[in-house]
Amino acid sequence: MIAAVPDQTAATDAERLARAYLLHVAEPPSPALLAFVGERGPVEAAQRVRAADCPGPVLRETAARRESTVAERDLERAEKSGARLVTPEDHEWPAWPLLSLAVATGRGVQNVAAPLGLWVRGSANLAEAADRAVAIVGARMATDYGVHNALEFAHALAARHIPVFSGAAMGIDAAAHRGALSGDGVTVALLGCAVDVAYPAGHADLLKRIIDNGGAVASEYAPGTPPARHRFLVRNRLIAGLTDGTVVVEAGARSGARNTATTAGALGKVVMALPGSLHSGNSAGCHALIRDCKATLVTTVDEVLETVGRFGTAEPGPGTHARPTDKLGQEALRVYEALVSRAGRGPEEIAENAGVPVARVRALLPELEIDGFAVRGDTGWRRIVRTAAR
Amino acid sequence: MIAAVPDQTAATDAERLARAYLLHVAEPPSPALLAFVGERGPVEAAQRVRAADCPGPVLRETAARRESTVAERDLERAEKSGARLVTPEDHEWPAWPLLSLAVATGRGVQNVAAPLGLWVRGSANLAEAADRAVAIVGARMATDYGVHNALEFAHALAARHIPVFSGAAMGIDAAAHRGALSGDGVTVALLGCAVDVAYPAGHADLLKRIIDNGGAVASEYAPGTPPARHRFLVRNRLIAGLTDGTVVVEAGARSGARNTATTAGALGKVVMALPGSLHSGNSAGCHALIRDCKATLVTTVDEVLETVGRFGTAEPGPGTHARPTDKLGQEALRVYEALVSRAGRGPEEIAENAGVPVARVRALLPELEIDGFAVRGDTGWRRIVRTAAR
Repeated sequence: MIAAVPDQTAATDAERLARAYLLHVAEPPSPALLAFVGERGPVEAAQRVRAADCPGPVLRETAARRESTVAERDLERAEKSGARLVTPEDHEWPAWPLLSLAVATGRGVQNVAAPLGLWVRGSANLAEAADRAVAIVGARMATDYGVHNALEFAHALAARHIPVFSGAAMGIDAAAHRGALSGDGVTVALLGCAVDVAYPAGHADLLKRIIDNGGAVASEYAPGTPPARHRFLVRNRLIAGLTDGTVVVEAGARSGARNTATTAGALGKVVMALPGSLHSGNSAGCHALIRDCKATLVTTVDEVLETVGRFGTAEPGPGTHARPTDKLGQEALRVYEALVSRAGRGPEEIAENAGVPVARVRALLPELEIDGFAVRGDTGWRRIVRTAAR
Repeated sequence: MIAAVPDQTAATDAERLARAYLLHVAEPPSPALLAFVGERGPVEAAQRVRAADCPGPVLRETAARRESTVAERDLERAEKSGARLVTPEDHEWPAWPLLSLAVATGRGVQNVAAPLGLWVRGSANLAEAADRAVAIVGARMATDYGVHNALEFAHALAARHIPVFSGAAMGIDAAAHRGALSGDGVTVALLGCAVDVAYPAGHADLLKRIIDNGGAVASEYAPGTPPARHRFLVRNRLIAGLTDGTVVVEAGARSGARNTATTAGALGKVVMALPGSLHSGNSAGCHALIRDCKATLVTTVDEVLETVGRFGTAEPGPGTHARPTDKLGQEALRVYEALVSRAGRGPEEIAENAGVPVARVRALLPELEIDGFAVRGDTGWRRIVRTAAR
């Protein structure tokens, strides 16, 4: 019943069937259902949802399709289209930034809940692809300048074996995928419709090439789900959340790419934007992000890597977290150790103490804040002492 | 002996002659001489320098030309070219950001000393022009994009009655002056040579138009001083220091405009930069400033005004700020009025005179120093007289 998978699976058939049901009954994102599944496990959660034996918020999220019986059909249909359902119980489940809804809401972003599962076509191991990935996003109505830059940046990332994630839309997204393919790289398309729905229609060949080239096409939406405007916005959080940083190549003043950037920032990810002519409406969104300090200006892939930072350090294995700080990268750990809890310090002072470039310190401090290791006060950044493992 | 001046002067002939001498004997910037003049006044300082009766650092700064006797000739020569010498004793002396050398050095900038005087052609009142001014600077080898933007930004600033300061160089500088003239605005050119030296040769007409249009051409350099590479760098601090903010329109990775921006930042001024194509070497300096958080990205004059900040409020007409001290709070004003300019006073004496608690006096004096109303000397705190309307 399950399509061939590129890595050892851990989910049982019951778990996968339960996840297929859960993905079908609630329109993502479904934070209450997510929390309920976290408490009860997918199998019990699915049973209780079906029996309407669950908390009010979960009932509300699942009210429309609770009685669905299509989970098996979804799995079969997926298999026919060469797709598999990847679940948090599987080895290839990618990490998702842990962030309390309260923090996200404080940042003006509601849409941060992890997916309950992902329908995937293509042989890429999602966890490996997402382990060190960069998102390249931008306007559908792109200029030649934007398309050129998206192609170039994606190509250069692929040449460094860094997977490029995007949304398979017209314009910048397509150029990002194409650039990665031209660099013979892994690229992952996250869709606002099901993976068996060819959308945009003109991109069927592009999606096939992504899959054939060792990449992946992924979606939360059950087979056959058509695209919808709100689904693209919801999907944007996957592009932001599954990558280390998001590069906005071109974006109008009010664009989906800006939404992705905002979500990436709220999720504690690095947000970057390319500059362009100040007469180009397609760069206006990039300039606004930079001007508002919501994105770092980048002009080369070297600057992207420097800004994202963690590609330079040794990869931490999926070990146990004996101490909270074990999960920190080398640089982040040095920054953390340069903080003190009783007094605020400025980035320059921290940089000097930590021996880490101040630009990196500025990038790492908000990450440490999100992870609960640091807090910004009136007098600077202070350490938060966390003796309990979390 | 003194050319027509646009405002009531306060300097005596002896003071002006002394300043002409002091400007001639030391190559700017001359921080030791500046401090010595601050202590002794220009007339006594000039006498002592001539007699080599001054501290070692002052001797070193003035060693090359101490025996010069050209001060009168400089003033006569200036008058012939329609120039006047504006001194700190004059009402039209512009405010200069007071910044200790230690702070500036900590910011990596040495070149922040105030000028000892300014040779000026043109009817603009320097203090009024500098009161709410924006600098527009950039590369000499500018692109069409850069020239267009410099013209547009300068024109729009002029249309809002905001003087545009620049360096009269080829490229962006010239476009800034021309844009301001096209908006019928006051524009001020600060030169790296004397105001009677036509440099660049092709800009003689531009300089004349600046003067004829109610602007000014100003320089620290004695009449006849030729341009020199180091003088342009030294001059850059005047562009940065006399304006509220500096807009870098185009700049190569290593350019004089970046030097101006760095100096402006060190002087506590607002630094802004325009974005451009990431393929343009002429925007590379702008992008680096923005990326390193040394400049704020701006794409419109509205954003310039918002970034500079103090223009955002209702436009004060010329003369609304009847006195510089109008901006002081009641206690600060009383402390200021308890200071005298010719002798130092201790906090206790000031407290008694001002009727302000000595603890508050101790807190307010450094603030007054930062705002340019007071200076701490060996014998105590002295008032800095700023009678010029701003």
